[in-house]
Amino acid sequence: MNAIGVDVGGTKIAAGVVTSEGELLAEVRYPTVARKEQLLLGIARAITEVEKVFEVGGVCLAVPGSILADENKVVDSPNLHAIEGIPLKDELEERTSLPVTVENDANAAAWGEFKFGAGSEVEHLVFLTLGTGVGGGVISHGVLLRGVQGAGGELGHVTIQATGPRCGCGNRGCLEALASGTAIGRRGREIASERPNTALGRLAVERKVFGEDVTELALEGDEAAGLVLEETGTWLGIGLAGFVNIFNPEIVAIGGGASKAGDLILDAARKEVQLRARSPARDLVKIKEATLGPESGILGAAALARNPSGEYVLDP
Amino acid sequence: MNAIGVDVGGTKIAAGVVTSEGELLAEVRYPTVARKEQLLLGIARAITEVEKVFEVGGVCLAVPGSILADENKVVDSPNLHAIEGIPLKDELEERTSLPVTVENDANAAAWGEFKFGAGSEVEHLVFLTLGTGVGGGVISHGVLLRGVQGAGGELGHVTIQATGPRCGCGNRGCLEALASGTAIGRRGREIASERPNTALGRLAVERKVFGEDVTELALEGDEAAGLVLEETGTWLGIGLAGFVNIFNPEIVAIGGGASKAGDLILDAARKEVQLRARSPARDLVKIKEATLGPESGILGAAALARNPSGEYVLDP
Repeated sequence: MNAIGVDVGGTKIAAGVVTSEGELLAEVRYPTVARKEQLLLGIARAITEVEKVFEVGGVCLAVPGSILADENKVVDSPNLHAIEGIPLKDELEERTSLPVTVENDANAAAWGEFKFGAGSEVEHLVFLTLGTGVGGGVISHGVLLRGVQGAGGELGHVTIQATGPRCGCGNRGCLEALASGTAIGRRGREIASERPNTALGRLAVERKVFGEDVTELALEGDEAAGLVLEETGTWLGIGLAGFVNIFNPEIVAIGGGASKAGDLILDAARKEVQLRARSPARDLVKIKEATLGPESGILGAAALARNPSGEYVLDP
Repeated sequence: MNAIGVDVGGTKIAAGVVTSEGELLAEVRYPTVARKEQLLLGIARAITEVEKVFEVGGVCLAVPGSILADENKVVDSPNLHAIEGIPLKDELEERTSLPVTVENDANAAAWGEFKFGAGSEVEHLVFLTLGTGVGGGVISHGVLLRGVQGAGGELGHVTIQATGPRCGCGNRGCLEALASGTAIGRRGREIASERPNTALGRLAVERKVFGEDVTELALEGDEAAGLVLEETGTWLGIGLAGFVNIFNPEIVAIGGGASKAGDLILDAARKEVQLRARSPARDLVKIKEATLGPESGILGAAALARNPSGEYVLDP
């Protein structure tokens, strides 16, 4: 049975109809509106738009922030406050006449990679998305790690340097504060001022440097930008080593915008995992790029709409 | 059906017959011998000793270090090198004629607390044991988190301060390096030299101060020793906040020798979790002392002998 996955982001709402094999049959995108009623209308419109053409069994929303699964609502969403507190299931079931469930966006993306992407052949997957923040999702023993309230899998907010830089969540030294796209931008600006005679240094004289700029310059071979990504990869690896020791996963898959840098980040992360994680877990784990790209949230959410328990079943 | 749990430690081998309700019917203890053949003999003798009196269905060994579940052996055991590489299942099944399985000791203790102790009414439990090192075990969605090789749940070796003190595992800033009994001893000696006019300072003039001394003096009201435990609790809380964000557990249970300090450590840990973990997970979690004491390993191992899958089943 087809299902609809909806990726509700800070800037856009993307809804897609997905087959049980993970084929995306149709997709629509609308800009996100930051007022509750407009936001609900936008989500409902995206769902009914893609539903017109295909028969579907249900909908799952991949939403940013911490969710309360029992109440199908978002408790805390730093990048989309409008979504906080809305009883999403009730509101959207009324508007669409389809069964609706809610999942954290990174958890949904992890489930997408588990069902159809980098983790499709394993039972133990750690997924991280490096974007503005660092999102995470874990499949352990074939089960999506949601925790008792559905708020589990927040891998971006583990402390890896207690005295480190301030994180968006208010703490210091979270993985997100050291290995997100935002962190790459911040560190890029610092290194640029130390190395004015590099491409990175010259760009910083012209305008504010962002994480994407650093990645692009590093891919073009700029040494200073490469250094920033290597540092980022080391911090990422410090976090990953902990996850490897905790979960003993087969695969760690890295997605999100900053993962475009590929091995420029991942080689340093792999090196740090070999230094910090324990045998035998470190010897087995493969650290690689996620394969589904930005569609992982839609694909994972659709698969969860068919299988809201988040347990691994064949052809649910 | 009764089963035998064997806790194989660095100094003693303890074997017990346990009912399916978690009642310990009989127990024997032998000193650990650090030679492979003698160690195997000791374990086999402990098993046959308690088996004499009661009918039992199987045996599970709770062993220190990282295990390879498929091969039923220990890969890396810093405190009991003699056990490394022994094909424990084959060797002991031959010697005892009982079915034998192998589990990491902290995982077994976590399962004990989950079945019979602090976590007996929940499905999501994080367990930590603060002793010479820091051991960990997780039950998530009612399943013991073993990972693909059985090496999962190593909560003591997540980095919480990348530039922190050296850990026994070779890295810097592991939770174990900052919140174990050993760390309490180290920090106790530092604080003692800064505060010679305290009970802790006076003891340090007489002899080397250990973690147990700090706990004892703190319980007697010594301010310097209390300060050490408060610092330890803060580091513990930094690690726990990460686990709360990752697992969204109902209960975090703390066992091991250093947990005798109770709220002298746990209050600071709770405070740090409230600062660092995210809502709604931090609002729900209870951080408390484990309830089974040193028998948790035997009780958990025996329960795993009856239910080697480590999934929650009623009356297995």
